[in-house]
Amino acid sequence: MSYRIAEMTWPQFAARKNKPVIVPIGSTEQHSQHLPLSTDAIIADRISLDLAKALDGMVMPTLSYGYKSKPLSGGGPLFPGTIDMNGTTVINQMHDILHELIDDGFTKIVVMNAHFENEAFIVEAIDLVTRETGGKATIVESNWWDPLPEEVNRQVFDGIEFPGWALEHAAVTETSLLLHYAPELVHMDRVVFTGNAEAKPYVRYPVRQGDVPDYGGLADPRGATAERGKLIADACVAEMTRICEREFGE
Amino acid sequence: MSYRIAEMTWPQFAARKNKPVIVPIGSTEQHSQHLPLSTDAIIADRISLDLAKALDGMVMPTLSYGYKSKPLSGGGPLFPGTIDMNGTTVINQMHDILHELIDDGFTKIVVMNAHFENEAFIVEAIDLVTRETGGKATIVESNWWDPLPEEVNRQVFDGIEFPGWALEHAAVTETSLLLHYAPELVHMDRVVFTGNAEAKPYVRYPVRQGDVPDYGGLADPRGATAERGKLIADACVAEMTRICEREFGE
Amino acid sequence: MSYRIAEMTWPQFAARKNKPVIVPIGSTEQHSQHLPLSTDAIIADRISLDLAKALDGMVMPTLSYGYKSKPLSGGGPLFPGTIDMNGTTVINQMHDILHELIDDGFTKIVVMNAHFENEAFIVEAIDLVTRETGGKATIVESNWWDPLPEEVNRQVFDGIEFPGWALEHAAVTETSLLLHYAPELVHMDRVVFTGNAEAKPYVRYPVRQGDVPDYGGLADPRGATAERGKLIADACVAEMTRICEREFGE
Amino acid sequence: MSYRIAEMTWPQFAARKNKPVIVPIGSTEQHSQHLPLSTDAIIADRISLDLAKALDGMVMPTLSYGYKSKPLSGGGPLFPGTIDMNGTTVINQMHDILHELIDDGFTKIVVMNAHFENEAFIVEAIDLVTRETGGKATIVESNWWDPLPEEVNRQVFDGIEFPGWALEHAAVTETSLLLHYAPELVHMDRVVFTGNAEAKPYVRYPVRQGDVPDYGGLADPRGATAERGKLIADACVAEMTRICEREFGE
Amino acid sequence: MSYRIAEMTWPQFAARKNKPVIVPIGSTEQHSQHLPLSTDAIIADRISLDLAKALDGMVMPTLSYGYKSKPLSGGGPLFPGTIDMNGTTVINQMHDILHELIDDGFTKIVVMNAHFENEAFIVEAIDLVTRETGGKATIVESNWWDPLPEEVNRQVFDGIEFPGWALEHAAVTETSLLLHYAPELVHMDRVVFTGNAEAKPYVRYPVRQGDVPDYGGLADPRGATAERGKLIADACVAEMTRICEREFGE
Amino acid sequence: MSYRIAEMTWPQFAARKNKPVIVPIGSTEQHSQHLPLSTDAIIADRISLDLAKALDGMVMPTLSYGYKSKPLSGGGPLFPGTIDMNGTTVINQMHDILHELIDDGFTKIVVMNAHFENEAFIVEAIDLVTRETGGKATIVESNWWDPLPEEVNRQVFDGIEFPGWALEHAAVTETSLLLHYAPELVHMDRVVFTGNAEAKPYVRYPVRQGDVPDYGGLADPRGATAERGKLIADACVAEMTRICEREFGE
Repeated sequence: MSYRIAEMTWPQFAARKNKPVIVPIGSTEQHSQHLPLSTDAIIADRISLDLAKALDGMVMPTLSYGYKSKPLSGGGPLFPGTIDMNGTTVINQMHDILHELIDDGFTKIVVMNAHFENEAFIVEAIDLVTRETGGKATIVESNWWDPLPEEVNRQVFDGIEFPGWALEHAAVTETSLLLHYAPELVHMDRVVFTGNAEAKPYVRYPVRQGDVPDYGGLADPRGATAERGKLIADACVAEMTRICEREFGE
Repeated sequence: MSYRIAEMTWPQFAARKNKPVIVPIGSTEQHSQHLPLSTDAIIADRISLDLAKALDGMVMPTLSYGYKSKPLSGGGPLFPGTIDMNGTTVINQMHDILHELIDDGFTKIVVMNAHFENEAFIVEAIDLVTRETGGKATIVESNWWDPLPEEVNRQVFDGIEFPGWALEHAAVTETSLLLHYAPELVHMDRVVFTGNAEAKPYVRYPVRQGDVPDYGGLADPRGATAERGKLIADACVAEMTRICEREFGE
Repeated sequence: MSYRIAEMTWPQFAARKNKPVIVPIGSTEQHSQHLPLSTDAIIADRISLDLAKALDGMVMPTLSYGYKSKPLSGGGPLFPGTIDMNGTTVINQMHDILHELIDDGFTKIVVMNAHFENEAFIVEAIDLVTRETGGKATIVESNWWDPLPEEVNRQVFDGIEFPGWALEHAAVTETSLLLHYAPELVHMDRVVFTGNAEAKPYVRYPVRQGDVPDYGGLADPRGATAERGKLIADACVAEMTRICEREFGE
Repeated sequence: MSYRIAEMTWPQFAARKNKPVIVPIGSTEQHSQHLPLSTDAIIADRISLDLAKALDGMVMPTLSYGYKSKPLSGGGPLFPGTIDMNGTTVINQMHDILHELIDDGFTKIVVMNAHFENEAFIVEAIDLVTRETGGKATIVESNWWDPLPEEVNRQVFDGIEFPGWALEHAAVTETSLLLHYAPELVHMDRVVFTGNAEAKPYVRYPVRQGDVPDYGGLADPRGATAERGKLIADACVAEMTRICEREFGE
Repeated sequence: MSYRIAEMTWPQFAARKNKPVIVPIGSTEQHSQHLPLSTDAIIADRISLDLAKALDGMVMPTLSYGYKSKPLSGGGPLFPGTIDMNGTTVINQMHDILHELIDDGFTKIVVMNAHFENEAFIVEAIDLVTRETGGKATIVESNWWDPLPEEVNRQVFDGIEFPGWALEHAAVTETSLLLHYAPELVHMDRVVFTGNAEAKPYVRYPVRQGDVPDYGGLADPRGATAERGKLIADACVAEMTRICEREFGE
Repeated sequence: MSYRIAEMTWPQFAARKNKPVIVPIGSTEQHSQHLPLSTDAIIADRISLDLAKALDGMVMPTLSYGYKSKPLSGGGPLFPGTIDMNGTTVINQMHDILHELIDDGFTKIVVMNAHFENEAFIVEAIDLVTRETGGKATIVESNWWDPLPEEVNRQVFDGIEFPGWALEHAAVTETSLLLHYAPELVHMDRVVFTGNAEAKPYVRYPVRQGDVPDYGGLADPRGATAERGKLIADACVAEMTRICEREFGE
């Protein structure tokens, strides 16, 4: 049987109300010269599917559009193909889905995020839904980078430089995850790298051409391998499984 | 090359600004005992992909969640797995995507809808965006049923009863489209049919158990075949191609 | 005694809490050369009044402004005098009125719509209010065309062509209803008709001059008579009475 | 010819773009034992019609629902038949209408209010529309009480007590206006008066039974006459005419 | 101990849940040549502090930004330094604060307003919160001018002209209050006065240069003294204390 | 002359349109047993004032209420005195202020944040305003922690443990800043510390008692000194001055 609710009939779904259900959210956003626009959506979807298997849970259809890409963490709004949703849209989109799941009787919900900029807005949605439904469901929200144990980070960057999470856009971790999950969409032969971007301690608007290097990357992706991707994915799933077991009982 | 922008890098997308871009929207909604919850999303996605090929255009990631399912046209809100978004959420979701495409310089946009209840809300989004952007882009909105020539309808229902579009939920047309596009997700062995639902000329709230037959279908899907599905899909794509050529010019 | 709550004092209204209360909604919209801008509002108001008499109910003040007029079903936004409300305004306007009626203790509510484009937005309002009030009230929504029995349609168009509901804007049915209800506002001597508009199976934005014939009509109104108007009105009221009796109980 | 756009065809309306157009707004609200629920809407409508004649202008369909009734100025929310709209609904309703009039090319607009509580919300709508449209139209907003010259006030209350505007709800002025405009809806035989309500210098929530005398009135309506109503109406129209001439130019 | 919750630790605040808590709201708005932009915020803050002492209550941090300044009552939007919030922002800002106080268990709340234009929007917030929380808290809203006894008004304007409340912007009362509370911010040497502004009985948009005298005042502030300020402040606090004792009970 | 626009008259403000203007935003939030509820607001206000002096700019009135406090970064919503605003309120509050400043002609704006949870929502406001105003103004947003050079961090935590920024709530940095700016509000004798809180790599709702230690702190504040506070404040102001000079030009 599939773990994707997209592929289930409603009676199959209804029969599994006591299982965890995972809502993946990514983005449609420039990812330099070598990664596809749906990089974040693909990662969110595939890690959620792995987690569904580990938890004997289910994965919802992935939200493919997310909050506005920012120059430092996501490459910025000036590249065609970066489709930025307003904050209230991101909040309401997640709100309505969570509310419906809770109305349907689900009480163990995971939101799996793969686009840093989404975070505050999806947590706002979780907060609003929790108030409205009297806290009936336990909702866990995380992403693929925060749960990684320090030890795993070290392994991933063993022999290569870690430029800091702020620059990890279309760089080693995301490229590795895509080499692991969807290697046919990765074009290592098109990689461009002209030096690490600078991690500025502030935001300045309007965003201008040049705030991000014109090819779209922030750090060097050349150390990426499918093995490193698998390392990240497996560690994330393992940690999230532990977290869910703790928070959902059993 | 893929026609899916999900699989393109941003330079590939940017290089095709003068091409039509298609935004598919479906729903996550009960589709009786034999079709999956993402039936509408799958149809929107696949017809859009066929249309992208015909137009040498591009297809955006599919919006998998839509407006509230209604008893007559969609099976209703009382079945688990029907994930109903509020009207303003559907409006804003589509609004933000269209606005970004237009800001990116696209001027030929198609919205392909596969969930009847979405219609008014996505057209509201199109109206708002058109006002805000001064009508810079031409936006065509349709679905897979309205463009079907009468002649094709007759062929599809040749030898079987046409219960009216209001009852065509999880019935011959949708089941045929899925047999054409994703036969592995269709369970003809689980089909239930207990007689056509009644097409009421009014709406009554609150919706109650029994407003829709408890298995979730409204009409008989047993005449569905992959050939009928292909007939519908091909006719829709052919008509939409003609419409786009007329509206977008050479 | 009047059936209009506009003309009642509050104790008169309060004394009739167990009666059905009807909320009429129309529009302010171009209706070709021979019908007034309030055609929809007048029809909504007068059919509601007839229905109130039949049900021994009450009719609320008519909402005279509605959702955006569309080229095919309503003549479009480019004619002066078409006053288009945004979707969220139409939702909230209806929402607040229904919520107040339910807070006042009314449990049998009818929404009578005479402007096709309003439909999705007023049903959204009904859905939201029903959720917020726990389904305390039974709300029936319809219009004057959907409940017409096929037999009545045939009588109305006996001897004249039925161009399809999509073109019935300022044509035989609406003109007949106004000849029945407010003949002093109908100018049959100014009728213009240059052939049926084409019912397009898609929407295209921006709306352009010429999407609707420049005089504002979509089909031939010359077969309209007060008798045909009475036929429609009486049949609609009779059907709605049956529907209300079924849905509201004794 | 009628001054009501409700009764005009669109070409009649379009031909008068350089004339002032008046948007009346009232409320649906308890008005003690002797006045109908639409008292404010009727006054707004009829004074606007008189003003349209004086200005050779036009009057739009009246907005029959307004902002929440308050204990001191309007009798409060606890009486059945008081239909309170939320503030944002009142803002958006007026906003959309004004925006459409300006888009249609009208530049001389009057908003005539007959429900005190509406004031701040309709002025907010005017402010928003003015910003959005770059101040293309001149919009005058007033009501029937503020423009009354002191001399006229004295005449109206000649020989009877003036309890202050805060208590003039269903009292001398409103009752007189209705005796002037719609005497068939006034029930002087049902008048109740048990002494002036107290004009409190603060607001307290929640509103409680007893904040307003249980019959619904705040002051003595027994001095009302049709002549006093005519005096008010004529003076208001005369003043508003002067104001419009000054603000709209020749 | 301080009466300002800004200066309390949370256990100090939590220990006083049965005490009245006061939410001051002012504005940032031009106040002619001699008063600072925060005049309203300072008055709201300081009168609230005095009231907190009188009630043994607490004062919340002052909301320094309010609703749009209008020409007649506040000097208008065309002066730099007048920071106008939209109506919905003012509603939501107050709504969220009140809702949190009620969730924290407070049941005696006072909103003290010092900017006339805020009034309708903060009362809307109070209404919404009261509905949402089932009326759990008693909320009193007023300002520093409405509760003043007639006798005190006469004393304040003893020997000087009272131009009417509509013109009391940056005039005798506000200047006196600031001379009482923050004399170091008053520049009597810079006072400009060129005659009383005219109190127009209507609103006209767009606001134009000249709707308010170009120096920013509406009436003569030269009679202002710290003693008059103290008279107003003491009377307001005394009245509000009586009101709170009546409404909050022992 | 004061650097606070609260204390300026409008002509003083208007005369300085070419200067940077700083908008401080904090929160009202529990800060353990020894710090006041307005800790964040005080820090935002005072660092902004120091920065205004350094830039010869101006500081706006501080926004004292911010976004919802979260367990890890701010102590959580379950403590009385934590006043949580909804995300859209925080967005709109900042939006309106920025929009007005830009309308008034200011083109150099700094938003100084002292409450981590505000960040995403105020940047959303900046993004929206920038789009609406065509990028007329340069807006820099930061806080007091991100611009601190690594070297300064080391000095601040010289000899004491740095628990990570996630736990720096009511701990060494905030306590030091308050000892520097407002020592009279710090109660070192009431400090409680029972061990560092755990920095969880995920969010779980509903928030529960115990997610934060019941006294409200996350890490040890006992190393706080006024000198450390001055070190942080001076370094932040120095860095922000450099940033503003770069971004605003000469």
